[in-house]
Amino acid sequence: MYPVNPRADEILGLKCYSSVEEIPDRIDLAVILVPYSSVIDVVKECIKKGARGFVVISGGFREAGREDLERELVHEVRKAGGRLIGPNCQGINNPHAGLCASWPLIRKSGPVAVISQSGTIGAYMEMNCEFLGISKFIALGNKADVDEIDLLEYLAEDDETGVVSLYMEGTRDGRRFMDAVEKCSRRKPVVILKGGTTEAGRESIKSHTGTLAGRDEVYDAAFRKAGAIRASSLEEFLDFTLALSFYGPRKIEEVVVITSSGGCGILASDAIETRGMKLKRIDDKIERLKKEMPDFVVLRNPLDLTGSAYAELYDKAMEIIGQADAYLLIFGDPIPGAFDVVKKHRDKTIFVSYLGGGNVEKEEVEKFRNAGFPVFPTPERAVNGMHAVRTYWRMLNKQ
Amino acid sequence: MYPVNPRADEILGLKCYSSVEEIPDRIDLAVILVPYSSVIDVVKECIKKGARGFVVISGGFREAGREDLERELVHEVRKAGGRLIGPNCQGINNPHAGLCASWPLIRKSGPVAVISQSGTIGAYMEMNCEFLGISKFIALGNKADVDEIDLLEYLAEDDETGVVSLYMEGTRDGRRFMDAVEKCSRRKPVVILKGGTTEAGRESIKSHTGTLAGRDEVYDAAFRKAGAIRASSLEEFLDFTLALSFYGPRKIEEVVVITSSGGCGILASDAIETRGMKLKRIDDKIERLKKEMPDFVVLRNPLDLTGSAYAELYDKAMEIIGQADAYLLIFGDPIPGAFDVVKKHRDKTIFVSYLGGGNVEKEEVEKFRNAGFPVFPTPERAVNGMHAVRTYWRMLNKQ
Repeated sequence: MYPVNPRADEILGLKCYSSVEEIPDRIDLAVILVPYSSVIDVVKECIKKGARGFVVISGGFREAGREDLERELVHEVRKAGGRLIGPNCQGINNPHAGLCASWPLIRKSGPVAVISQSGTIGAYMEMNCEFLGISKFIALGNKADVDEIDLLEYLAEDDETGVVSLYMEGTRDGRRFMDAVEKCSRRKPVVILKGGTTEAGRESIKSHTGTLAGRDEVYDAAFRKAGAIRASSLEEFLDFTLALSFYGPRKIEEVVVITSSGGCGILASDAIETRGMKLKRIDDKIERLKKEMPDFVVLRNPLDLTGSAYAELYDKAMEIIGQADAYLLIFGDPIPGAFDVVKKHRDKTIFVSYLGGGNVEKEEVEKFRNAGFPVFPTPERAVNGMHAVRTYWRMLNKQ
Repeated sequence: MYPVNPRADEILGLKCYSSVEEIPDRIDLAVILVPYSSVIDVVKECIKKGARGFVVISGGFREAGREDLERELVHEVRKAGGRLIGPNCQGINNPHAGLCASWPLIRKSGPVAVISQSGTIGAYMEMNCEFLGISKFIALGNKADVDEIDLLEYLAEDDETGVVSLYMEGTRDGRRFMDAVEKCSRRKPVVILKGGTTEAGRESIKSHTGTLAGRDEVYDAAFRKAGAIRASSLEEFLDFTLALSFYGPRKIEEVVVITSSGGCGILASDAIETRGMKLKRIDDKIERLKKEMPDFVVLRNPLDLTGSAYAELYDKAMEIIGQADAYLLIFGDPIPGAFDVVKKHRDKTIFVSYLGGGNVEKEEVEKFRNAGFPVFPTPERAVNGMHAVRTYWRMLNKQ
């Protein structure tokens, strides 16, 4: 790595060069963050040094009305046989290779790939998925050269990537985009958050990245047809991504809810039915549950352990009820030992929501995160995750 | 306060009595947490000591099939001219009076009243609204005597309460309930989260608090007619409550968005239009903005300060744009000084979303919270809050 800046001798302990020309070596990749008017000159210097990969973080191109400058930039890169990410973007991150040419600095490698036409939305996803690990982050910016289609094609083949999460504002070639989504989603889930669902949003897009957004109904139908899983908000985008990264596709039709909070059990029941799933009937287990569980437990699904719940009761209940498509465990009180119980039942599909638990909650959630296990902050958001996992399974199995 | 427990001499530094009879004084309020089979005996003892207020935390009554026991409990209390909260509930909290007969221990007094048929949902709200301050928390439990109707009537008149947030599963008297909501919401906003929107949810309610839930469409129409603001998820319940507590009713039709993140500006634009509001036209300010803002700023609404944003730009922009129904400031990068800028413009209606900002974000959000100012974790959730504030204004002004 060779930092270049005319006003510094050293950056983060590395010798700093005053120009690209001075670098005593060939370059593979140039990450450029200089005023827009100097970008093309710097690109040319880098090409002379052998660079073919370019990440242009600087803005001031098409989004600022300088289409010509952007075309010239792409022309220079392509003429040399290179490829360009950006301009007007937040860079790239590849923790598997120890390369973070972006911010924030996220080091943990794992299955989550994030492609984002917005730096902030990308950073939000990276930060909130870091405990699972990131495979690649690519900020699209103005996508003057490399776009989401190239990246979907690339990530489809990338063994380090388990899930592709894409925030997009539009695409230039609907047909190629759909093909890329379809191919990728046959191998790994593609979660999409699309900005510009309304007229106001589409107007805003024009000045953000200059993309023509097109009608939302068209995108919606295309996403569905191509097998993408579409999120309707930033938080849903996160919930879908976390769940698919951790669980992958699973058949989830019937869910068992075990809760310390009756009210949260009801919110979960509503969310489960709204998402087209069912509460599993557990009539044949009631007799044994009655015999082996304390008096205060409400014997149905949702199984309400009430505020007197302790971790061993979740354990016992799962032991008795046995296999189910999925469990949703709601810890609605400060219940220590939650993580250990879930770990013990790792043969089951268990979604966890922890809320209302003060310091005990903080400690338990920390244990889950350290183990790379997603915990959802409300029952409804856990069901969001379940929905994504189910939707992807149904897509793969054409149901 | 007189703790009573036969197995302790002292509890939290207070002398502990082995029976109610031994207490050397009259009692006003009895908080009872003994096995269900002893509750009625304890109630009788407390009545002899003068108690007329009862909070029964113990479960084991109607929700466990013991309707008779519950009826007897109510009978004993009423015979003495008393009132009862619970049984099967998480108690009450009144920080203004320094009385917390519930958990978690929340001490900060303020405008938020929470009535909840679920202890966990109540605790979630208390914890997340504590920075604004709590006026009252009442867990309804089985509401054998005091119910949401009594409490709405009481809180309507309570000067310490600015907003009433109600989690409910059903009501016994639809007409009286609607009257109570209508009367209360004329004086202060009533936010309602209702469990049991689906068949699965309604089935779960039966065994939680034994309430008959009734069809959701009927509730929905009734809420609307009576002027309640209905939340569709636990997080929305929180967002609505925070916003109404802080802003009260305000006319919000046209919004100015100032953002460091183009993508988040687009998500905000979509949310604003989806909720029936508009982005304010700022054509007449563009000339001055162009003159006084740096080159990189994208001059429209949403005003995109880009990743190069710093706090003074938000200040400057608001100074130039001037009055608007509402501002949404999105800090999508680690931007110090956010709180100071917002404080300076306290004559304006400003909603804040802060995300993607690491440690700087933590410090800034802490400053906002210490000042009792709500910060929303995503642009969409800030727009949730805006929606509630607008809806309440429109209700009061019959629009």
